[in-house]
Amino acid sequence: MAISKRMAVVGVGLIGGSLARVLREQGEVGEIVGVGRTEQNLIRAVELGVIDRYSQDPCEGVRGADLVFLSTPVRSIAAVLERIAPFLSPGCIVTDGGSVKEPVVAACEPLMPTGTHFVGGHPIAGTERSGVDASLVTLFRGKRCIVTPTPRTDGRALETVVRMWRSAGSEVIRMDARKHDRIVAAISHLPHMVAYSLVNAVDGYERLDESILSYSAGGFRDFTRIASSDPAMWRDIALMNRSALLEMMDFFTGYFGRLRSLVESCDAEGLEKFFAESKRSRDSIK
Amino acid sequence: MAISKRMAVVGVGLIGGSLARVLREQGEVGEIVGVGRTEQNLIRAVELGVIDRYSQDPCEGVRGADLVFLSTPVRSIAAVLERIAPFLSPGCIVTDGGSVKEPVVAACEPLMPTGTHFVGGHPIAGTERSGVDASLVTLFRGKRCIVTPTPRTDGRALETVVRMWRSAGSEVIRMDARKHDRIVAAISHLPHMVAYSLVNAVDGYERLDESILSYSAGGFRDFTRIASSDPAMWRDIALMNRSALLEMMDFFTGYFGRLRSLVESCDAEGLEKFFAESKRSRDSIK
Repeated sequence: MAISKRMAVVGVGLIGGSLARVLREQGEVGEIVGVGRTEQNLIRAVELGVIDRYSQDPCEGVRGADLVFLSTPVRSIAAVLERIAPFLSPGCIVTDGGSVKEPVVAACEPLMPTGTHFVGGHPIAGTERSGVDASLVTLFRGKRCIVTPTPRTDGRALETVVRMWRSAGSEVIRMDARKHDRIVAAISHLPHMVAYSLVNAVDGYERLDESILSYSAGGFRDFTRIASSDPAMWRDIALMNRSALLEMMDFFTGYFGRLRSLVESCDAEGLEKFFAESKRSRDSIK
Repeated sequence: MAISKRMAVVGVGLIGGSLARVLREQGEVGEIVGVGRTEQNLIRAVELGVIDRYSQDPCEGVRGADLVFLSTPVRSIAAVLERIAPFLSPGCIVTDGGSVKEPVVAACEPLMPTGTHFVGGHPIAGTERSGVDASLVTLFRGKRCIVTPTPRTDGRALETVVRMWRSAGSEVIRMDARKHDRIVAAISHLPHMVAYSLVNAVDGYERLDESILSYSAGGFRDFTRIASSDPAMWRDIALMNRSALLEMMDFFTGYFGRLRSLVESCDAEGLEKFFAESKRSRDSIK
């Protein structure tokens, strides 16, 4: 049996579009209704076969859906849910793809009408591109998806969301929302802060000298690719995951400061050890 | 006319091997003699057709060569030159591929016997792999190579080195050695310090929690790829380009600290502006 007879995808971009594509390919949904603000994007999504029809009114769009996927910017997930909550069908399961979980889950759970269910989720996948044209049926294949149930989470709703991400090709991991937020602060949010700062530093230095960026070879380009990510999205992530992010930024600053001391004191042995430890860790990533 | 009748390549690894390959392909050298410590690597280089013959004794290896390319670790370039200087043929041109130039050029120039010529150079190319097996005929194609002549540099020797790198497919840029060192500190050395620190920070944090690195998706892997680079090489680079590197590390720390303040004070507008500036610079890199 399919997971959903009618699914509403609120926010038909890279993540929402890719999920719609793969669930359709897997025969897991009857009808897919796209919801968004920009009609042009929704028309494009219909043209691409990603969704069957669309509505620019979220309350209208979720009507009759048994599954709702919220794929809006992370800071607006709870606000969207607040708006649509009165229009959800009995038994409806709402889940999201937001990259910060604790504040989202804490805000969303109390908004759910009796007999409807919220499950927090975060597929660890993406590219620096965005929009439905960037969506891919393979985006989640072989990736991890973290779901963050709470004691209040309905068991069958959780099962459905787990099954949905497995159908998309992901390995599903259950985790406490707070722990999730610290992990993504470390492996995703901190690297973005570092990349954004690095590009700004080199560009700032450039003004003192001549065009330094024009000398950047493949290494710098690859290293700073994530600094091309959407500024508004990262503004929201930084604000929503503020405390875990600050903790990781300070943790990084400690290591960077230690390395600076090794350079300043010409500690050859210490430097080699610092680099070798890093290489060992990096090489251990499968 | 070919550039060289007999060329000695001291250090037949990624850079030395790739230069030998492309100069042979272009018909720019008669005989190529490889010099190195590890006989196994030299035998492999002969098998691959990268060099014609080899010597483990640098003094023996450079005998009769009209062109010598020093491709040893950057910290040992001057020491190798000191050893081979008495054995250089009259008119011989010595050049190097070291990624730090001011201290190398300052140490090498005075070592050259009368009638022989030193020209500093640095091809901005490479991968995180090393060894002759990683060498490629195309490594320098479409890349930049910086040469750093001084008032003492012989005009014809400089012309020969420029021609050599053009034959390898590179765009050659002349630059003051000090300026070179600041540019590479910004676009290469600083990013490496940041990547090494980032991996160590995440790995250090990992010990407090569970295996965080196992959650790292493609973004973290790509971002930290350069932290797999050779620790001994980067120890030497950090020590040789110490002052420019410290300057850039402090410059970066200033920007990272500014970003931290924006996160801490929940400055949404400031954060978006910081990220948007970075994205604009990053997207401008061709």
